[in-house]
Amino acid sequence: MKVFGRNAVTECLRSDRTIDKLLVEKGDKSDLVSLARNRGVKVQFVDKAVLDKESDNGRHQGCIAFTSEFSYCELEELLPQNNDHPVLLVVLEEITDPHNLGSIIRVSECAGVDGIIIGKNRQVAVNETVERCSAGAVSHVRIARVTNINNAIKQLRDSGVWVYCADMDGQSMYQADLTGNIALVIGGEGKGVGKLTRSLCDGVISIALKGKVNSLNASVACGIVVYEAVRQRQ
Amino acid sequence: MKVFGRNAVTECLRSDRTIDKLLVEKGDKSDLVSLARNRGVKVQFVDKAVLDKESDNGRHQGCIAFTSEFSYCELEELLPQNNDHPVLLVVLEEITDPHNLGSIIRVSECAGVDGIIIGKNRQVAVNETVERCSAGAVSHVRIARVTNINNAIKQLRDSGVWVYCADMDGQSMYQADLTGNIALVIGGEGKGVGKLTRSLCDGVISIALKGKVNSLNASVACGIVVYEAVRQRQ
Repeated sequence: MKVFGRNAVTECLRSDRTIDKLLVEKGDKSDLVSLARNRGVKVQFVDKAVLDKESDNGRHQGCIAFTSEFSYCELEELLPQNNDHPVLLVVLEEITDPHNLGSIIRVSECAGVDGIIIGKNRQVAVNETVERCSAGAVSHVRIARVTNINNAIKQLRDSGVWVYCADMDGQSMYQADLTGNIALVIGGEGKGVGKLTRSLCDGVISIALKGKVNSLNASVACGIVVYEAVRQRQ
Repeated sequence: MKVFGRNAVTECLRSDRTIDKLLVEKGDKSDLVSLARNRGVKVQFVDKAVLDKESDNGRHQGCIAFTSEFSYCELEELLPQNNDHPVLLVVLEEITDPHNLGSIIRVSECAGVDGIIIGKNRQVAVNETVERCSAGAVSHVRIARVTNINNAIKQLRDSGVWVYCADMDGQSMYQADLTGNIALVIGGEGKGVGKLTRSLCDGVISIALKGKVNSLNASVACGIVVYEAVRQRQ
């Protein structure tokens, strides 16, 4: 897998992911090069044309890291391990836009979530666009990819995690108790959380909508809900 | 100005903006057509090729509205008018990406802000991409475009508005008092709020960052801060 863009490459170098080599543009004297060398990563200085060729769209910002494939974790690794640390998880249902997935991973990592759960079907996987849009956050957050989101929700509940879905017509998120072991389910672009998924959750929480448009982008909605959980858990 | 996309066109039709005509694809029997007719807007049924030609990138979703240019309001219209309604404003400094601006307008409208203030220089204006990315929210929120953001901040403060900028190393936004007449300053992508602008504000508020990446997308950050104000004002 290739990682493009300065933020994404930097975070990749700062993580424990395996990196085969780093291509940077000739003359690059940035921290990136020393970061790579300190980590024992082979650095190759190449012409811009090589970077352009290696990146389909040319959005490499002068650096490309060749890494191992993104490695998902198991759902079991995200379940509560003890009572000392209540987990905060994000469950994604059918997010199809890689920019949105990248942005969700980015804000989730900033909020300090313990993990993200995505489905294998009708959902974009972690790819190069997701990696770039996450500003490198994929290197620092655990992501489990499950065959069936609804089964995962059942398993979370069986493990003592309280599962809330973010949707219309629910309880105000300010009134819900978002402390303890919590998973927040975010629905796909344009259609929100599916009926079956919604019915499997412990509760539905809503963001107060005070305008006329009343539709939020999935990553913005995720940021608002996750940060309400952060507030309550402080 | 042309407005593309079903959401943006629908919201445009639901607003009081002047619409010269609506082009829809032949055979369209959606609510859009009746909405336009009820409002007295001329509807033309055309081939998809016409819509493709009229839209540069083809992202028209089967409809294009021809409207008057976006009409900005004056800064004075956004100032507090009386003590009964404390205003909530968003001030943008050098947002250059139209997708980000559209997304900021969208979440601001959902949060019920009273207006948005943008600069004339080094900042993208409301254009067709912004309109589409806002999901039509530009039709329902007042936007003032000022020559100098810093002068606007001074004018806001002189009018009794408390101006907070969202930036690193500030007071936790959960501890700040976001009730009353408030303006929230959001900085541009990648560089945040400028030093001079920051020094002109009454206070700096920060979003708790608990990860390793610690950089939020401007529209996600705006959504988190604006919704913290919504929570406090409830």
